[in-house]
Amino acid sequence: MKLAANRYGKARVRLMKVTRHDGVHELREWTVRVLLEGDFDSAHLEGDNSRILPTDTMKNTVYSCAKESRAESMEEFAEELIAFLLRRNQQVSSVEVKIESVLWKRLTVDGEPHPDSFMRGSDEVQTVLTRRTKSDKHTSSGEQTSQSGLSNLVILKTARSGFEGYIKDELTTLRETSDRLFGTAVTADWIYSTETKSGFNELRERIREVMLKAFAKHDSKSVQQTLYAMAEAALRATPELVQMHMVMPNKHCLLVDLKPFGQENANEIFVPTEDPHGYIEATVTRG
Amino acid sequence: MKLAANRYGKARVRLMKVTRHDGVHELREWTVRVLLEGDFDSAHLEGDNSRILPTDTMKNTVYSCAKESRAESMEEFAEELIAFLLRRNQQVSSVEVKIESVLWKRLTVDGEPHPDSFMRGSDEVQTVLTRRTKSDKHTSSGEQTSQSGLSNLVILKTARSGFEGYIKDELTTLRETSDRLFGTAVTADWIYSTETKSGFNELRERIREVMLKAFAKHDSKSVQQTLYAMAEAALRATPELVQMHMVMPNKHCLLVDLKPFGQENANEIFVPTEDPHGYIEATVTRG
Amino acid sequence: MKLAANRYGKARVRLMKVTRHDGVHELREWTVRVLLEGDFDSAHLEGDNSRILPTDTMKNTVYSCAKESRAESMEEFAEELIAFLLRRNQQVSSVEVKIESVLWKRLTVDGEPHPDSFMRGSDEVQTVLTRRTKSDKHTSSGEQTSQSGLSNLVILKTARSGFEGYIKDELTTLRETSDRLFGTAVTADWIYSTETKSGFNELRERIREVMLKAFAKHDSKSVQQTLYAMAEAALRATPELVQMHMVMPNKHCLLVDLKPFGQENANEIFVPTEDPHGYIEATVTRG
Amino acid sequence: MKLAANRYGKARVRLMKVTRHDGVHELREWTVRVLLEGDFDSAHLEGDNSRILPTDTMKNTVYSCAKESRAESMEEFAEELIAFLLRRNQQVSSVEVKIESVLWKRLTVDGEPHPDSFMRGSDEVQTVLTRRTKSDKHTSSGEQTSQSGLSNLVILKTARSGFEGYIKDELTTLRETSDRLFGTAVTADWIYSTETKSGFNELRERIREVMLKAFAKHDSKSVQQTLYAMAEAALRATPELVQMHMVMPNKHCLLVDLKPFGQENANEIFVPTEDPHGYIEATVTRG
Repeated sequence: MKLAANRYGKARVRLMKVTRHDGVHELREWTVRVLLEGDFDSAHLEGDNSRILPTDTMKNTVYSCAKESRAESMEEFAEELIAFLLRRNQQVSSVEVKIESVLWKRLTVDGEPHPDSFMRGSDEVQTVLTRRTKSDKHTSSGEQTSQSGLSNLVILKTARSGFEGYIKDELTTLRETSDRLFGTAVTADWIYSTETKSGFNELRERIREVMLKAFAKHDSKSVQQTLYAMAEAALRATPELVQMHMVMPNKHCLLVDLKPFGQENANEIFVPTEDPHGYIEATVTRG
Repeated sequence: MKLAANRYGKARVRLMKVTRHDGVHELREWTVRVLLEGDFDSAHLEGDNSRILPTDTMKNTVYSCAKESRAESMEEFAEELIAFLLRRNQQVSSVEVKIESVLWKRLTVDGEPHPDSFMRGSDEVQTVLTRRTKSDKHTSSGEQTSQSGLSNLVILKTARSGFEGYIKDELTTLRETSDRLFGTAVTADWIYSTETKSGFNELRERIREVMLKAFAKHDSKSVQQTLYAMAEAALRATPELVQMHMVMPNKHCLLVDLKPFGQENANEIFVPTEDPHGYIEATVTRG
Repeated sequence: MKLAANRYGKARVRLMKVTRHDGVHELREWTVRVLLEGDFDSAHLEGDNSRILPTDTMKNTVYSCAKESRAESMEEFAEELIAFLLRRNQQVSSVEVKIESVLWKRLTVDGEPHPDSFMRGSDEVQTVLTRRTKSDKHTSSGEQTSQSGLSNLVILKTARSGFEGYIKDELTTLRETSDRLFGTAVTADWIYSTETKSGFNELRERIREVMLKAFAKHDSKSVQQTLYAMAEAALRATPELVQMHMVMPNKHCLLVDLKPFGQENANEIFVPTEDPHGYIEATVTRG
Repeated sequence: MKLAANRYGKARVRLMKVTRHDGVHELREWTVRVLLEGDFDSAHLEGDNSRILPTDTMKNTVYSCAKESRAESMEEFAEELIAFLLRRNQQVSSVEVKIESVLWKRLTVDGEPHPDSFMRGSDEVQTVLTRRTKSDKHTSSGEQTSQSGLSNLVILKTARSGFEGYIKDELTTLRETSDRLFGTAVTADWIYSTETKSGFNELRERIREVMLKAFAKHDSKSVQQTLYAMAEAALRATPELVQMHMVMPNKHCLLVDLKPFGQENANEIFVPTEDPHGYIEATVTRG
C-alpha cells in the first residue's frame, strides 16, 4: 500500500474579536480552518507523532495570532497565519487557511448607529481560501494562491425573468413562461491579480454591489444568462479581478394552480420549494 | 381506553405572495399551520373519515384564501382563515392558525430602493398564533385568543454587561465579571387588548424597536434584568399591549485564556459557543 | 408592571458517560436541561443576583451528579438532580429537568458484540421531563410530575394504508386511495402510574416495541386511526401506563405521474416531501 | 470576457422506489444530482436556450428511468442515466451523476422481518459519483470515472486510543494521553478497477465491514494512524479496489475536570463537542 496524499488540521475554530476605538466597538466573527501538508508519513505508517503539530495547537495559534494581528481583512489574516505556521514548522510544506465571516450589523437607536450593540444579519457568509507551498525547507515564502468569495447570498427578483425556447422532447412537462420568480442563493469566489496586496474589504464590497445591481437590472432569459451578466459586471467594474466563478441554484417558486377553485392566479400566489433545485455554475475570465 | 383529546391539521404550508402596485412589487413569504379540533372520534376509533376535512384541502384553503385576501397583516389573515374554516365545517369546534413570516428586504440599487428585487434578511421570524372556539355549532364566531411575536432575533452587546454577586458554593467555578459580551436570540410573544383590531404591522414594528433600544441602552447586571427592562419598555411604549412573554438564552462568548502564551486578553478575543447555553424566561403584565 | 412568571436554567448540557464492567464498556450520551422557579424577583427588578444560582453552576451540578450517580435510567437521574438542587437551594420552589438521549449501538465485529466500539444509531431521541414543586421551604420533597417519551422515530409502511371517504368540497383536489405510502416521525410522551418507581428502561423498550408492532400490523384507514391503535396497544400491554400522548406528522410520499411519458406507475415511484405535512395529535387514557 | 467553464443540472431530485416480490417489499430512497457539460455558450452570452435541456426535464428523466430500471445498485443506475442523457443530447459532451442513498431498515415484528414496514436508520449516507465524457458527438460512450463511497458514518471507541509524543512548543496546551475517546464521522470514497462491472452492493458492504473492524481493533496512536489502518484493511480485503480516500474529523469528547469539586474523573464523564474539530484526510493506493 502507498500513502498517496494526506493533510490534516483544525476546522471550525470560532473567533470573535472586539476592537474598541474611542468608545466605538467593532465586532468580527470568523470561523477558521487550518490544513497542513508535509512530511507526516511516519504518523500514518508507524504511529510516530514526532512531526505532528497537534490540531489543538493550531487552534491556540489562531487565537494567539488574532490577538496580535492588525489585519483589517480576512485575506490579510489568512496570510499572517500561514506565514506564522510555515516559519515555525519545517516539517510542513504547505498551509491552507479558510476563513468564513458572518454578518453583524450595528444597531440603530434613536436614528443613530449605536457604539456597542449589534444584530446578526442574514446567513450570507464572506469567505477566503489561501494556500501557500514553501519553495524550500528553510523559508516561509513560496507560491501562494488565494480565492475571496461569498456564499448563501439569497436574492429574488419578481420581474424581468422568463425561460423560453428550450429543447422540448417526450420527457418535457415544463411550460414556457415570460414572467416567473427568479430566486437563488449565490455562491461566488474570485481571484485577484497578484499585484493586489490590500484594499480587500473595499474590493469585496464593490464586487458584491455590482453583482447585486446586475441581478436586479437584468432582463433574464435564463439563470445562465444572468449569472454570466453578474460575473461580467464584476470583472468590468474591478480591474483587480482576473477570474469569477459562480454557482447559482434555481430555487423554484411554483405558481399555485387555482383554476380548480375558479380563481385566476396572475403570478401572485407561489409555493417556494427546496427540492429539487436547478444548479448553474460557470467561470468567467478576462479573455 | 378513552380518546381524551385530539386535533389535526396541516403544517408548513409555504406561501409566497407578490403584490404589484404601479410597478412596485411587494413580497411576503409566510409559513402557515392550521389545526382543527372537533368531532373526530369516529375517525380514530372506527376509521370513519366522513367528518375529516383532508389536510390537503386545508392547504388548498390557505392558497385560495391568500388569493382573495386583502389582509395587510398576518394577524388579519389568520382571522380570515379561521372564519372561513369554521363557517364551512360544522364538525369543527375550534381552529388554530399559526403563521411565521421571514424577512425579505428590498435591494438598494444606485442608492434607490429597487421596485422588484429583494434580498433575504436574517433568520428572525415574525409570528402570530390565533385560536377561535365556536360558541355553538351554527356560527363561526366564538372566543378568540391571539399572540403576536417574533423569534430568533439575534443580538449582542459588547459593553455595559456584567454578572456579579451571585450565589457561590462548592460547585461554583464561574468568575464574576463586570464586563462581558451579552449575546442572545430573543423569542417574544405578546397579547394585545381585545379592543386592538388593526394596525398590527405598525404595533409590531414599534414593539421590536423599543425592545432593541432597551437592550442597547441597558446597564445589564444579568440577563434576567435586561429581559425585564425590555419587556417593561415594550409595555410602557405600547398601550395596546397587555402582556409580554420572553425567552432569552444566554449565548455564551467565552474569553480565551492567552496567559499561557504570555499575552493579555483585555476582553478582545472570544470563542462563541452553542452548547450549553443559559435559558431565561419571564412574563410581564400591566400590574 | 408586574413580573407574572419567570424561570431560568441551563440548556444543552451535553454529557457522555462511559461505564466499564470487566472490560466491557457502556456508553450513554445525554443532553440535559435544568430549569428553576423560585424567588427571583429582585434579580429582574433590581439586578440583585444574591438569590441566583449561576447557570454555570447548574452545568457543573449535572457533571458532578453524573459522576456519583448509579442511576440506570434517565428517569432516575432526573429525580436525583432535582433532589440535589432542591435540597441545596431554599430560594428555589420548583425544578424541572429534561433529558434527551441519543442512540449509540455496539459494533458487531466478527459476529460478536465488540466491548468498546460503537456506532451512532438513528436520530430517534429518548426523552424524560420531570418537575417537582417543593411543598415547603425546608424540604426537597413535594409534588412531582414526570413524562417519559421518544421523538423522531421515523417509520414507513408500504402496504395496508389508504385514505378514503373524507369530506369533499369545492376546495378538494386530493384523490381517494386504498394503497398509499404511510411515513411518519413519531413523537410520543407518556405518564406512568405514581406507583411505578423503577424498571423504566424495560418499560420504555416494551412500549416502543408494542407501538412499532401496532404500526406494522395496522390496516390503516387514516393516520388518526393508526395513531389511536398504537396508543391503545401501548396502554393494553403496559399496566404501568396511565396516559399516552402522540404526535404523528403525515410525511407525504407523492406518487409520480408518469402518464405523460407513456408509463404506468403502479405505486412504485414516489417523491418524498418535507413541506407541507399533515399533523395528527391525540391523547389516549385508560377510560 | 471569456466563458471559461460551465455546467448545469438538477440537484436534490428525491426518489423513493418500492419494489414488490411475492408480498415482500423493498424500499430505496435516493437523492440524485445530474450535471451536464456541453455547448451552452449561447445560453450564457445571448440568452439563446435552444441547446438547453431544462433541468425540469432532467428531473422527469430520473423518474422515468427509475421506473424502467432493473439496476440493483446506485452504480448501475448512475450509468443508465448517463447513457440515456448522452444518447439523446448531442449538445452534451459530459454527464455527471451523483446519487446518495439513506438507510431504511426492515422492522422486526414478533422476531420476524416484516414484509412491508421500515424504520429510518442513522444519518449515514451511501454515495456514488460517476462521470462520462463522450469521445465524439455521435456516441454515448466515452471515458468514464466513478467513485463509490459513504459519508457520516459516526463511530466512537472508548479504549485503545491515545495521542502522545507530538511536537510541543510555547503554544502547546494539550496534555498527552494514553487513553482517550476517539469519535469520528467517516467520509470515504473509493475507486474500483475498470474490470469491476457488477456486485457493487456486496463490495460496498464488505468494504464498510472491514473498515469498521479495523477501527474497532486498532491500537490507535493518532487519527492518522487509524485512518491509514482502515484504508489499508479495505484495500487488502478487496482486490477490486484500487484507491481509498478518507476524511475523518476528530470529534473531541473532552474529559470534564471534576477536581474543583473534590471528585476524580477516571475517564468516565465527558463533554462531546462540535467546535472545533480535528480534520484528517488521506488517500491510500496499491503501491
